[in-house]
Amino acid sequence: MAQYSSTLDGVFQAVSDPTRRAVLGRLGAGPASIGELAAPFDMALPSFMKHIGYLERSGLIRTRKTGRVRICTLERGTFDLIESWLGEQRSIWEGRTDRLERLVTTGTVDKEIPA
Amino acid sequence: MAQYSSTLDGVFQAVSDPTRRAVLGRLGAGPASIGELAAPFDMALPSFMKHIGYLERSGLIRTRKTGRVRICTLERGTFDLIESWLGEQRSIWEGRTDRLERLVTTGTVDKEIPA
Repeated sequence: MAQYSSTLDGVFQAVSDPTRRAVLGRLGAGPASIGELAAPFDMALPSFMKHIGYLERSGLIRTRKTGRVRICTLERGTFDLIESWLGEQRSIWEGRTDRLERLVTTGTVDKEIPA
Repeated sequence: MAQYSSTLDGVFQAVSDPTRRAVLGRLGAGPASIGELAAPFDMALPSFMKHIGYLERSGLIRTRKTGRVRICTLERGTFDLIESWLGEQRSIWEGRTDRLERLVTTGTVDKEIPA
């Protein structure tokens, strides 16, 4: 659970930056080299590599060296963590709605979810 | 578009912290005062208020003062931004799959999505 939480920290941190989201969007269309990924950005390579490092550590992409070129690939499965977290939130909301409905229809309600 | 992007920055930044995610989970069960929200955390109030500030600026919660108590409420609509962004990513992936399918079934493929 602690590990899931710290993975989520890294994933959300990774997608909280517009450059990193643009890289993810590009990689959604297929693998690309660091050079191809960096080309649209007016940014020094070391700065760009920091973004790549963030994405790789979060598990949203992986990179592999092929000769002198490093190729980046999207790890689609990691996006499921975001989807799951959204799903958990919606479950909480629905739990609440269910209790309100029971109150309205039966006049009874079970006790509040503990904080 | 720039505004959508900077809103997304703030939303993802807001949910990248376990305390803030726990607060969102609690508020999913209904509005709560700052005191109620802070109770489970071993954290000084000023630090906790910084988390609340993050959440409020991101649009994920709103707060209103009722007498001497500040009540926080979840803004569920803001979660749709995360959902939309995930949907955009999946559209990109599916676009790619469509092109691969065309290549396999017709032997032709339109040009690569620009980076």
